[in-house]
Amino acid sequence: MTVHQRTRTDDPHYIRLHESDNVAIVVNSFGLPPGTQFSDGLVLKEFVPQGHKVALTDLADGAPIRRYGEVIGYAIGDIPQGSWVEESKVRMPSPPALDSLELGTRVPAPLPPLEGYTFEGYRNPDGSVGTKNILAISTSVQCVAGTLDFAVRRIKEELLPKYPNVDDVVPLTHACGCGVAINAPQAVIPIRTLQSLARHPNFGGEVMIVGLGCEKLQPERLLPDDKQGVVRLQDDSFHGFGDMIEAIMEMAEARLKVLHARKRETVPASELVIGLQCGGSDAFSGVTANPALGFAADLLVRAGATVMFSEVTEVRDAIHLLTPRAVNEDVARALVREMAWYDDYLAQGQADRSANPSPGNKKGGLANVVEKALGSVAKSGSSAISGVLAPGERVKERGLIFAATPASDFVCGTLQLASGMTLQVFTTGRGTPYGLSAAPVIKVATRTELAERWRDLIDVNAGRIATGDATIEEVGWEIFHPNPIRLSA
Amino acid sequence: MTVHQRTRTDDPHYIRLHESDNVAIVVNSFGLPPGTQFSDGLVLKEFVPQGHKVALTDLADGAPIRRYGEVIGYAIGDIPQGSWVEESKVRMPSPPALDSLELGTRVPAPLPPLEGYTFEGYRNPDGSVGTKNILAISTSVQCVAGTLDFAVRRIKEELLPKYPNVDDVVPLTHACGCGVAINAPQAVIPIRTLQSLARHPNFGGEVMIVGLGCEKLQPERLLPDDKQGVVRLQDDSFHGFGDMIEAIMEMAEARLKVLHARKRETVPASELVIGLQCGGSDAFSGVTANPALGFAADLLVRAGATVMFSEVTEVRDAIHLLTPRAVNEDVARALVREMAWYDDYLAQGQADRSANPSPGNKKGGLANVVEKALGSVAKSGSSAISGVLAPGERVKERGLIFAATPASDFVCGTLQLASGMTLQVFTTGRGTPYGLSAAPVIKVATRTELAERWRDLIDVNAGRIATGDATIEEVGWEIFHPNPIRLSA
Repeated sequence: MTVHQRTRTDDPHYIRLHESDNVAIVVNSFGLPPGTQFSDGLVLKEFVPQGHKVALTDLADGAPIRRYGEVIGYAIGDIPQGSWVEESKVRMPSPPALDSLELGTRVPAPLPPLEGYTFEGYRNPDGSVGTKNILAISTSVQCVAGTLDFAVRRIKEELLPKYPNVDDVVPLTHACGCGVAINAPQAVIPIRTLQSLARHPNFGGEVMIVGLGCEKLQPERLLPDDKQGVVRLQDDSFHGFGDMIEAIMEMAEARLKVLHARKRETVPASELVIGLQCGGSDAFSGVTANPALGFAADLLVRAGATVMFSEVTEVRDAIHLLTPRAVNEDVARALVREMAWYDDYLAQGQADRSANPSPGNKKGGLANVVEKALGSVAKSGSSAISGVLAPGERVKERGLIFAATPASDFVCGTLQLASGMTLQVFTTGRGTPYGLSAAPVIKVATRTELAERWRDLIDVNAGRIATGDATIEEVGWEIFHPNPIRLSA
Repeated sequence: MTVHQRTRTDDPHYIRLHESDNVAIVVNSFGLPPGTQFSDGLVLKEFVPQGHKVALTDLADGAPIRRYGEVIGYAIGDIPQGSWVEESKVRMPSPPALDSLELGTRVPAPLPPLEGYTFEGYRNPDGSVGTKNILAISTSVQCVAGTLDFAVRRIKEELLPKYPNVDDVVPLTHACGCGVAINAPQAVIPIRTLQSLARHPNFGGEVMIVGLGCEKLQPERLLPDDKQGVVRLQDDSFHGFGDMIEAIMEMAEARLKVLHARKRETVPASELVIGLQCGGSDAFSGVTANPALGFAADLLVRAGATVMFSEVTEVRDAIHLLTPRAVNEDVARALVREMAWYDDYLAQGQADRSANPSPGNKKGGLANVVEKALGSVAKSGSSAISGVLAPGERVKERGLIFAATPASDFVCGTLQLASGMTLQVFTTGRGTPYGLSAAPVIKVATRTELAERWRDLIDVNAGRIATGDATIEEVGWEIFHPNPIRLSA
């Protein structure tokens, strides 16, 4: 990476990520005006906003535009050296063909193990380890959501304070369960997600289900091994709403008592299941926060943990960089399977991948989804990819896993939780006040401006990498020793 | 309708709905045992549960089974007189073909107007009339839902008590707005729904929007005529979460002040927009609650109100009874258009209409979606159908309108709200503790057992029709004079 060339905070500087790149991004907070000269002699022909690309050489009409050492598009019209390579001047390339990818051809060698790191977790009977101690109340059908929300407010006010070892009460409400064809092929995804969520390590095996009674998705499908953990609102013994609320509260209190008795114990870092996500990305995401998170991901894999990266939308255009890293051909083919699902999904909805990035991503300097994807997959670090999960599947292997999810923040978060994630690291450039009820989230800012402005929402400032105040490795280690997990050696 | 034949509550009795019917349903609470003799001489060959069908004649293998004067299926094997016509003995017929329907061929003549009925409503600048006075806070994107929920809790606790003329504060959160292809053809439905909801009569033109900033669905698309009503969480002036909450609360308080100054006034019944829905249906739905609601719908149409019925899923199999009632060919074709959309939707999802009814519907005696549909459309009464709305479209005409929605309770309710519904009537047989935040819901039970058991959830007991204690007309008038609207002459 070339940071050209910073001696004082306000000196003009840009970041070029790969020696073959013919564009670089401007770092200075408010962009740079025409006539600005960089330390290497490059002169800006026009204003270039922060995070946006400047042409390092003359780019002829149709010429490939390279960032991250990859082609992110082709020049529309001649683009002279020093010009702003604005979105409208970049023709998006086709996505990598799925039938000619290298499958497990360049499997990275394992990095040396990182031993002795531990954290304080809740060990469960099924062998999983939680990072929180939560009473979860799931639902088999949308019709009960309002009633459950009412009950949960009362549980939090009247019962939870009596059981201070329990961190929270979380209702798992959703729009499924009835009024839809639950045996349609794609209905497997929401149903599996609910089944997996019920088994989340942070719920300590004490989840309960609120159902209606007449719904198509019967509660037994969510919790087959616990006949005692269901309240059905149509129960003949309930004389109205008050009885329903009392029954939910009574079952909740019995479970709060069990959860309250649990104790944290010291467990190895290998028991962590980490999810990686980015939201509100900008051009710095792939320069600062995501590469630092990739470095942290490598550290976590070395410590034996499970690390999930996701977001099919933002992996599709970088898939050719990932399938060679799959630990074997089967894993590579599973990656291809998830990309093909997405291609079909777009075609069925008569949409295409240009629906991404968002206006904010574009304002942040991302010209198209190819550029966004190349920055997004930096989160995956450099380890071999040892497994692939379909949406909502529970994770089994350790190491680096691709968990297929959409890129929408809360949808990705929910599916990573379903897969068993007990800690998430979330990078953001534009800024989003994202969080999850069921697992801690560490927020990493791509820019110093955001980290300083949102002091109560951002945990780690990766913007220091762009300004030369920290290295990718330093910020990576900072993510590895995070609050509230605080891995200790 | 033949009620055979009741002199005491526990005498065996059944209900046959049409003279051509060869099945009837058993009314007695716990079903009836083999050997039971009815007053007309019919003897049960086996146990028949409450709400389930008994064969009134011998039905040969393949013979049509008739209820409501319509074919609800064909006998699988011979079914002797007095047998239980259980679900597994009924082969479902094909749905009515969409290319050979009668279009506006039998338009009912208008019933005599019903004049002088009024209610106390809130008149809005756009001419609409609300039944409640609510501060609604909409959202342009899913990412802000958690922050808004936090703010709304504080608004309800700290601000709402200062403005007692305001009934409630309702957040309109959803899963859309970004991370999806908002320009895909079908994305028009959620976007239009959010646009229409923002204009709901009960929100008094004072809705506000919370957005993120970088999302694809920009707040201006939801509220084009109000540039002042948006809080963007990425606003540069916000230094963290506290500032975001303060900004939302400040804008909310300004709007609470305006809403607090509104006064109810006496307006004609023709200003009401009523939505009809059923949920947790049973075999009595089409015998008691829905016909009584149909009678009330006719009264409301006579009073000049707008009456919407919905639930494409449960209209598809009775569409041949509806297209002839359309006020003209265009309206009939619009009905066909919505049915064709549903056929395509099922095909695309590789599902079919046998996904409905639910297990509870079946326990309640409904053999298949044909029988369910015939009971469901009884809600529409006997008026001409004067308009059709695509999902989330705002209603323009008065009279009886078909508003296309799925049958899932909360999805139907939300779409009817988007179309402008200010009062809903909801019938239920199995029972559901359904309600809406944005408009009052009148709950009608199909069975006396349910009405008596759920005294705090059911407003009207239509079960008295089955037991001969009230007529359809009497219960219809009772729905027409409901709490909390209480139409008065």
